[in-house]
Amino acid sequence: MLLTKIIPRVSETDGAGHINNTVMPVWFEAGRKDIFKLLTPDLCFKRWRVALVNMNLDYVAQTRFQEDVLVKTWIEKIGNKSFVVYEELHQGDRLCAKGTATYVYFNYESQSAETIPEAARVGLSKHLKI
Amino acid sequence: MLLTKIIPRVSETDGAGHINNTVMPVWFEAGRKDIFKLLTPDLCFKRWRVALVNMNLDYVAQTRFQEDVLVKTWIEKIGNKSFVVYEELHQGDRLCAKGTATYVYFNYESQSAETIPEAARVGLSKHLKI
Amino acid sequence: MLLTKIIPRVSETDGAGHINNTVMPVWFEAGRKDIFKLLTPDLCFKRWRVALVNMNLDYVAQTRFQEDVLVKTWIEKIGNKSFVVYEELHQGDRLCAKGTATYVYFNYESQSAETIPEAARVGLSKHLKI
Amino acid sequence: MLLTKIIPRVSETDGAGHINNTVMPVWFEAGRKDIFKLLTPDLCFKRWRVALVNMNLDYVAQTRFQEDVLVKTWIEKIGNKSFVVYEELHQGDRLCAKGTATYVYFNYESQSAETIPEAARVGLSKHLKI
Repeated sequence: MLLTKIIPRVSETDGAGHINNTVMPVWFEAGRKDIFKLLTPDLCFKRWRVALVNMNLDYVAQTRFQEDVLVKTWIEKIGNKSFVVYEELHQGDRLCAKGTATYVYFNYESQSAETIPEAARVGLSKHLKI
Repeated sequence: MLLTKIIPRVSETDGAGHINNTVMPVWFEAGRKDIFKLLTPDLCFKRWRVALVNMNLDYVAQTRFQEDVLVKTWIEKIGNKSFVVYEELHQGDRLCAKGTATYVYFNYESQSAETIPEAARVGLSKHLKI
Repeated sequence: MLLTKIIPRVSETDGAGHINNTVMPVWFEAGRKDIFKLLTPDLCFKRWRVALVNMNLDYVAQTRFQEDVLVKTWIEKIGNKSFVVYEELHQGDRLCAKGTATYVYFNYESQSAETIPEAARVGLSKHLKI
Repeated sequence: MLLTKIIPRVSETDGAGHINNTVMPVWFEAGRKDIFKLLTPDLCFKRWRVALVNMNLDYVAQTRFQEDVLVKTWIEKIGNKSFVVYEELHQGDRLCAKGTATYVYFNYESQSAETIPEAARVGLSKHLKI
């Protein structure tokens, strides 16, 4: 499991007084930075290899500006050309949101999905949720 | 159906060269402004009445910075205390993303879900996807 | 003068109830899209030619979520390798913010400032604030 | 001086390949969270007491996605009803951006500027840049 600590920003709140729901995808993507590094070790966009195909998010409880956030990130499933990330957003002992992100291993030059290379597969499998 | 025209912004692109995937929830929420108005006619946050409980998004094709976007918004289902929005993002004749957002009619003061009032229900039903 | 109409989004508000101050740079950048087109006609990032060197913004009045916004954009000054944009944000007859953005005509490949080409200079000069 | 470590997010990059210039105001605001706490100790928006009146930012060098960021925050000046924050954005030994933010101590209920209370003044003065 990957752990990412996040300090909520004023700009991430909204008029209803809590963290706006469009911020969770931003924080969850932030929690995947080490996953991106497994697929593109130098994090260079010219060699970027992932394309998101689905995001599914449950908003379980309101996320507060005043409290630090912990994003937990697992790999739920590794396919041939795709993989699924499972992630949770916690504030203290409250689970605020959870969801999945499905990525395709994607070659932007040839514009096609490719088989996940063995080294990346091994790296991903270390974060598998059992 | 509600139509919202959106002009992509530089700040909404990312290093991979297209619109970042965290922007689609922002644009789709923008497309719901008239829905929010049905539930809170003066759009005042003190009387805000919706809380998002689920968001499910399919990324169908890359969204380009160079082309204007059309967000199409329907109501898919109206329950007793909740409703589901269905939405699509188009660039020209390309469908780039589609998804649903499930909202609860929520009273922030009492922190509880409430029955959708009749007037709002009538308003929502005008945008039902048949 | 360039005019850009903007509809405020829920995600652009903050807990204090108005549009968050980090959003004005986003909207002002949105108001410069036709300026960017003068310098990079196909808006392709591989041929991107501007780099921001200074932004100076006065927040004159609170910007409300409930009201549509008009961004007005002028060219204030054209130098040899740089130019200054002057911009204003209006809601109805209220001026909410104003400021300048100073750009260098920049070649990202050679990582150096270059002389603004004549065609772009002519284009920019059509929006000069007199 | 306050120090805030920031890990750049994919969503904060833009098509030109670096961190988009609209992100610096977001990160600088993030660096002021402890300043806001001095003025509104429980960080509750109902008691929010600051309103931004000017932001001035110099972009000194390109900010890269691949490298962690350090935001340094000082108080530059404390007036009767206002104060100025000075801030810098560093990546390794590169200064990438610097600027000021001028805030008024503001009562949102009465919609008027007020004298900064003594306790807040003492707190602010501990971060004065000498």
